[in-house]
Amino acid sequence: MPELRKDPIVDRWVIISTERGKRPFDFPPARPKMQRGFCPFCYGNESKAPPEILAYRPDGSPPNAPGWRLRVVPNKFPALKVEGDINRVGEGMFDKMSGIGAHEVIIETPDHESALEQLPVRNIEDCLWAFQQRIADLKKDSRFRYILIFKNHGEAAGATLEHSHSQLIALPIVPDLALQELAGAKRHYDYKERCIYCDIIAQERGSGRRVIEENDQFVAISPYAPRFPFETWIFPRYHAARFESSGVNQLPRCAQMLKNILLRMRKALNEPPYNFVLHTAPVKDNCDAYYHWHLEIMPKLTEMAGFEQGTGFYINYTPPEEAAETLRNVRT
Amino acid sequence: MPELRKDPIVDRWVIISTERGKRPFDFPPARPKMQRGFCPFCYGNESKAPPEILAYRPDGSPPNAPGWRLRVVPNKFPALKVEGDINRVGEGMFDKMSGIGAHEVIIETPDHESALEQLPVRNIEDCLWAFQQRIADLKKDSRFRYILIFKNHGEAAGATLEHSHSQLIALPIVPDLALQELAGAKRHYDYKERCIYCDIIAQERGSGRRVIEENDQFVAISPYAPRFPFETWIFPRYHAARFESSGVNQLPRCAQMLKNILLRMRKALNEPPYNFVLHTAPVKDNCDAYYHWHLEIMPKLTEMAGFEQGTGFYINYTPPEEAAETLRNVRT
Repeated sequence: MPELRKDPIVDRWVIISTERGKRPFDFPPARPKMQRGFCPFCYGNESKAPPEILAYRPDGSPPNAPGWRLRVVPNKFPALKVEGDINRVGEGMFDKMSGIGAHEVIIETPDHESALEQLPVRNIEDCLWAFQQRIADLKKDSRFRYILIFKNHGEAAGATLEHSHSQLIALPIVPDLALQELAGAKRHYDYKERCIYCDIIAQERGSGRRVIEENDQFVAISPYAPRFPFETWIFPRYHAARFESSGVNQLPRCAQMLKNILLRMRKALNEPPYNFVLHTAPVKDNCDAYYHWHLEIMPKLTEMAGFEQGTGFYINYTPPEEAAETLRNVRT
Repeated sequence: MPELRKDPIVDRWVIISTERGKRPFDFPPARPKMQRGFCPFCYGNESKAPPEILAYRPDGSPPNAPGWRLRVVPNKFPALKVEGDINRVGEGMFDKMSGIGAHEVIIETPDHESALEQLPVRNIEDCLWAFQQRIADLKKDSRFRYILIFKNHGEAAGATLEHSHSQLIALPIVPDLALQELAGAKRHYDYKERCIYCDIIAQERGSGRRVIEENDQFVAISPYAPRFPFETWIFPRYHAARFESSGVNQLPRCAQMLKNILLRMRKALNEPPYNFVLHTAPVKDNCDAYYHWHLEIMPKLTEMAGFEQGTGFYINYTPPEEAAETLRNVRT
């Protein structure tokens, strides 16, 4: 059983997996490499992945068989286990709990060759709807506090399968960075009674220097103090704490923006590996007045130096004004 | 001029370097690769590095010439500039300051072939004394708030020169993780009037499960909730907030422990790239009662997945009890 353990000094939760036996591991342990060749996410290979949780099947085909446009399946090698109780235990001054959580894979397309940004907008919109449906379902499980949605694209960004997919991890804790964002946003709200993200969006749209693209509902910016070169944040222009509150008027515009930004990166940065992480409100938090959901996209252009991992202190050689200008000037 | 910019939500400072012209950069920007061949840190090539700030020259040889045992020089491509005033400026709701700081390189040995852990203990002790001397000197500069000492060993850990060296960056801000450690340690102290690190050391030495090695002054442990496989922390067993307060009775023992731990990793993990970061009290903080300096050593065995960078939430497939046992069982 994996465990969630908390660092007692900085309150950082870490998943400690004790399941090495179930997956082929090297010693010293290495992150699993990209598997090539046989693909469990292609048509006809549905039985090689765990049974589907959700699928969009316009042709009415039976479950776990070809015909789908998008599928959600449990991760075959989950970081957390979905069955069991949250068992909170102290070990002297340390805190741990059983590693309960859901770990799912969103197979974004049956097309093995296309990256997400190469799919029609309608398919990207499907992914966003699938994220929403899975969030709505997992929120009913009282054990979960946060639903983390992210994508690793390309081996250097941590993908272990080529076929385009994103991932979801439902957690019994709230990750560190989400807690920090919530605390910062609350501090601003307590003082000003305004959403800090709305204030940032207004300032950025006013100056325009770090705006990459906007439409009637969304805006993409290079943040003022980015950790990584070409880091890009997509915000809804309207105030909303929760991704899952976006509806039929918003999600198609979000999908279009996501496609455009990823295509801009693809062209300007030579098809980079990338990650994105959905930042949305914790399941049970009453933060609707002051939090603002967004997508953070990070092309993986550089290796992190060790001291950056060790200190949380970053050196970025690409000023965001230059990154925004470069991405803005790409012809989409 | 580089800038220090603060993320207004999570209060994270980032160095934004605008000095791309001075260093050969690729586009898209990549972290500089390891330079091989000519070595500016070898005997006879002293003129290819900036003039030395400090050197240990047992033979009384002249500055910037062979004969030294250890040298400290300014980094030729500094992340921050040492000349100028801290100019704190607001940009609407954002905060920045000029990128003032010292960036120095500690050349640990004239021997191009040896890794730090392969040097005699006396040379490792030299490095620790050099860290202390540079801290003592830089503390006199009222612009600096934190002196960050770290080592990148091996290309995958961010080293750009093979010749064994460590680095120092004096900063006009306190890095994020240091602030988090200070806040956590203070919370514990306010409640219990004890140092949280002293409490952890006592508990770990009591159980022994995560202890790798100890001597009369230092102890090395696998932390309870490590972010990375085989992450190892070396603590002084006595309470001390500041590395620079360690004296002639302590530093030789610290050097011996550092050598032993790095040798254990070298043998058990097949000469891994690694980083270490010295965690010590900020220059001006009155935290002597509750902070406890230590060294954090992280062998670079896995690539960080993007969602770990994006969320600060880590999955570690090597439980620290297994890591400690593996390292403990290495014959040194």
